Amino acid sequence: MDYRLLSKIKSPADIKDMSYQQLESLAQEIRYKLLETVSENGGHLAPNLGVVELTLAIHKVFDSPKDQIVFDVGHQCYTHKLLTGRFEQFSTLRKKDGISGFCRPGESEHDIFYSGHSGTSVSSGLGLAHAKELQKDGSYVISVIGDGSFTGGMVYEALNNGGRTNAKHIIILNDNKMSISENVGAFAKYLAIIRSKPGYYSFKAGTEKFLSRVPMGKSVARKLYDIKTDIKNKLYSQSTFFEDLGYRYMGPVDGHNIENLCDALETAKNVNMPVVLHVLTVKGRGYGYAEKHPSIFHGISDFDVETGEAKASGGNFSEKFGEYLCKKAEIDESICAITAAMGIGTGLRTFSEKYPKRFFDVGIAEEHAVTFASGLAKNGMKPVYAVYSTFFQRCYDQLIHDVSLQKLKVIFAVDRAGFVGEDGETHHGLFDVSFLSTVPDIKIYSPCCYRSLEADINNVLYADEYSAVVRYPRGKPKENVQKLHYDCIEYATYGNPESKTVILTYGRITSEGIEAVDRLSQAGKSVFLVSLNLIKPIPENVFQLLTDKDNIYFFEEGMKNGGIAERIGFMLLEKGYKGRYTAKAVDNKFVEQASVSEQLSAYGLDCESMIKLIGEN
Amino acid sequence: MDYRLLSKIKSPADIKDMSYQQLESLAQEIRYKLLETVSENGGHLAPNLGVVELTLAIHKVFDSPKDQIVFDVGHQCYTHKLLTGRFEQFSTLRKKDGISGFCRPGESEHDIFYSGHSGTSVSSGLGLAHAKELQKDGSYVISVIGDGSFTGGMVYEALNNGGRTNAKHIIILNDNKMSISENVGAFAKYLAIIRSKPGYYSFKAGTEKFLSRVPMGKSVARKLYDIKTDIKNKLYSQSTFFEDLGYRYMGPVDGHNIENLCDALETAKNVNMPVVLHVLTVKGRGYGYAEKHPSIFHGISDFDVETGEAKASGGNFSEKFGEYLCKKAEIDESICAITAAMGIGTGLRTFSEKYPKRFFDVGIAEEHAVTFASGLAKNGMKPVYAVYSTFFQRCYDQLIHDVSLQKLKVIFAVDRAGFVGEDGETHHGLFDVSFLSTVPDIKIYSPCCYRSLEADINNVLYADEYSAVVRYPRGKPKENVQKLHYDCIEYATYGNPESKTVILTYGRITSEGIEAVDRLSQAGKSVFLVSLNLIKPIPENVFQLLTDKDNIYFFEEGMKNGGIAERIGFMLLEKGYKGRYTAKAVDNKFVEQASVSEQLSAYGLDCESMIKLIGEN
Repeated sequence: MDYRLLSKIKSPADIKDMSYQQLESLAQEIRYKLLETVSENGGHLAPNLGVVELTLAIHKVFDSPKDQIVFDVGHQCYTHKLLTGRFEQFSTLRKKDGISGFCRPGESEHDIFYSGHSGTSVSSGLGLAHAKELQKDGSYVISVIGDGSFTGGMVYEALNNGGRTNAKHIIILNDNKMSISENVGAFAKYLAIIRSKPGYYSFKAGTEKFLSRVPMGKSVARKLYDIKTDIKNKLYSQSTFFEDLGYRYMGPVDGHNIENLCDALETAKNVNMPVVLHVLTVKGRGYGYAEKHPSIFHGISDFDVETGEAKASGGNFSEKFGEYLCKKAEIDESICAITAAMGIGTGLRTFSEKYPKRFFDVGIAEEHAVTFASGLAKNGMKPVYAVYSTFFQRCYDQLIHDVSLQKLKVIFAVDRAGFVGEDGETHHGLFDVSFLSTVPDIKIYSPCCYRSLEADINNVLYADEYSAVVRYPRGKPKENVQKLHYDCIEYATYGNPESKTVILTYGRITSEGIEAVDRLSQAGKSVFLVSLNLIKPIPENVFQLLTDKDNIYFFEEGMKNGGIAERIGFMLLEKGYKGRYTAKAVDNKFVEQASVSEQLSAYGLDCESMIKLIGEN
Repeated sequence: MDYRLLSKIKSPADIKDMSYQQLESLAQEIRYKLLETVSENGGHLAPNLGVVELTLAIHKVFDSPKDQIVFDVGHQCYTHKLLTGRFEQFSTLRKKDGISGFCRPGESEHDIFYSGHSGTSVSSGLGLAHAKELQKDGSYVISVIGDGSFTGGMVYEALNNGGRTNAKHIIILNDNKMSISENVGAFAKYLAIIRSKPGYYSFKAGTEKFLSRVPMGKSVARKLYDIKTDIKNKLYSQSTFFEDLGYRYMGPVDGHNIENLCDALETAKNVNMPVVLHVLTVKGRGYGYAEKHPSIFHGISDFDVETGEAKASGGNFSEKFGEYLCKKAEIDESICAITAAMGIGTGLRTFSEKYPKRFFDVGIAEEHAVTFASGLAKNGMKPVYAVYSTFFQRCYDQLIHDVSLQKLKVIFAVDRAGFVGEDGETHHGLFDVSFLSTVPDIKIYSPCCYRSLEADINNVLYADEYSAVVRYPRGKPKENVQKLHYDCIEYATYGNPESKTVILTYGRITSEGIEAVDRLSQAGKSVFLVSLNLIKPIPENVFQLLTDKDNIYFFEEGMKNGGIAERIGFMLLEKGYKGRYTAKAVDNKFVEQASVSEQLSAYGLDCESMIKLIGEN
């Protein structure tokens, strides 16, 4: 592919004069580029294939960055990036120092907000639009948001506010009939009903087009709008949910027809009230495997374009978690599994098939998931909520108010704890230890291998009295963790216990510590390693290993503020420890995209950095 | 009042055989008891006066605790408490060791969940109901929730899940036409439309009553229901929002007519699908002042029943904050104020009147408020979000993802930081310092007096580059804080700088520290006090005052885990501090209701405790 059209586009201005036919050809080139890049670098494929035409239409009708486009979640912004001067660098997608797989303001003036979490674009868009209104700026804000995000509450909070304003805010509901996994709940059913009435939009669009050609004052337009609404009400005998909330509803429109999209967007521009434009797209559009398996091709590692097969393989913590939970659920009927639209990612697919009545996919509704779980627990079930660390941040209040305070037992399987690599700033699991540590009574386990993962799950299900978290990283453990010596459930050790120098750590980087101990030992320096499995509460028995040491190095794959390194340092001081204490962690920073090993190295948490730091002292 | 009927009620069983007339008399007694108690003890008056009849009807129709009643927020549960064996102790409402002003499971088997935060009852109710369904238990779950809570997103997340289940879950929408302050947004407008069609319910109720007397099989009932729905659709030409989500909608019904309520609840019991029962109540019903000023009588301190006047008075931090912000907004048109339905409580009333265009009450939508603010900030406004510390817990992810990561400047005025006294477990502002400390770049100021409050507000508006929090307690500062010596904005000092013993603290309890210094000095023991004003980042210049000391005592009115005492301890250790370090804070506990001074004393944070601890060593 020579990217005849695409390679010449330096800014959205370059597509303004293109014909619809040229735009169609451009769409083909973009799809090719998306496949080429994502099959190589990994990334979000299906969502991006679905919005090629939509993104083209938006950039044709609106003037970015004066008009501001906010992409919800942001993982569908690849076409936007290709149209806003980032074609040349696009092969660096998701690489260290390369183009982000999400919107990133530092990268371009066309990226308005960093994004990565779902359901924020209506709120931030409304804020942008209100500011414009206060400043009497006539430009537009466009929020592009998928139907999946509409299962999250923040969208409703924003709609409830936005429907009564005069802000120039256009919400594009990108309806691909599924969120990340299959869309769930009543809202999905509701959209299906609207979709079944395509006549509504085409009728309306025809009338609009006619009317827009008649010059008239605002009051006439208003009157005509009222008449049309009336006609519509008579025709369909029900208003849409969005109209109930105060929005002008338009749609559904075919999201792969650029001309129709442009017409609809032009109409939306001239409505003088906030608009919801309902667009129908096909997730994975144009690539057969992705159209057929949109969930699998939602976010993927590198794959073979011809066969649709992933290049990488092998088990991982998520799969093992799912496997262990199924094993337990077979003999314990009180076990329930909950996910917020991440059934596949969290390893719960088999569970959902084997125990459908005890499996709850609540949609992208992380907060509700926790409180719902607490209801299940109150009536005697054992709910296990599997969630990515970064999205778990949304549950902080519910953890305090609806779980911990209630003295109930809800189990949290926190996946993607620590660095996640290529997804970058918005997706790391670096905060969970810090925020979970503040919640009374909740225990936190951070296994570094499958053996301790299984033991921890068993423990939280049957030994612990209250709620507990088991957290584990993306991917799989390195083999050297098998060398660890388990003295007790709370921690494991390695190396020479007599050594006055200690490496203290937990979770994935335990394996880095083991290698550091081995290599330092080869170089004649004896070091003792303690890897915590239980990190909250800090096990008291671990201090007997520490208080008489001279040099303790804590390595933490997480935030320094509120982390375990800080807590243990404080406790050592209170206990009168007189040796040296050095902590390495991520300090007051967001970590940019790169591979996990590059990130470990950048923050001094890999084996090399450990050796260097300890060797120096 | 001799409480002829009420005094005999030991459990809900005692009202089962009462006539509607007797129940009316009982309602009168309950109202009298509510007024008598709340005027003395303070508490939530208007919400409780509004649901007397509703609560009676629920307990007449359902069998608590087999049927489980979940009160949203919980501050409308007083009648429920009076009917479930707590009449005798009711005069201890909100006192130390007394009856809680919210639901509290430890108090009674009829209290299902601790509550205090809004919008959780549908989620937890759905969980309870699902567990019952899995266990094939035929009893009911009833969630009682106000229209105000419907401005929060969690309710929608739960409705989106609940509408497709067969769980025996009845949601009672207690519509008093306002949330804590006046209800805002599209949903309120929508309810107003439904309310205007009272014929719908009475028609339906009549038909139901007739039909319920005809014995018939399930399929017949289903068929009849379909016919009725059809009739309804023809009558009103639109479905309700709740029906769109899959619920059976019933209402609106007069929430002060016990017989109508009982009829409606009986119908709801027999519907075999999840129900939303829409009930109209008058907030403050039966007490003129409260009906007229429901916001003021929502939650109040003790007052004079005859005049409706509050007994306590005098300025407080909230008022001062509002005053300073107005002063700034007068000369700076970019300043906006945001509240999540707490305009009066956070001192923003005057602001809302003077600058209505720059004032945004978003409803009980704490998450949206933050992301909305970030949109305003991105386009050049200076948004100030005033929020209670306990509710701010809901914003953790938005703070990370939509504020800090964006490098935007949003200002947070965090009210009710620290102990709040009588509201108890669910309302303390004890977590904010810990969770905010983990968020990159965000600064935290914790002023202990009006002078530093004003300076901090000025600072965050005009000196700081990124987002910042100014947090302050409920109530007003003690006078002795004027004795403080301000060396710099970061901290203030008092007492003898040469002393080797230091009291380190921040915020409200600085005044306890000052008194301790004075009294220890009188007893011949010289102590130096350092009160931090900036608590994140920890000001480096404060360590010059600390590293050569022998004994440092940190007193913290907040959680120990992730708190400032812990962080400074850790930093001192890293800097090689060799003295003793002792930290007092709330450790892994929820603090029960009492007065603030009782709470300070219970956790070793009042002047007496300080003197005792320091004197001992």
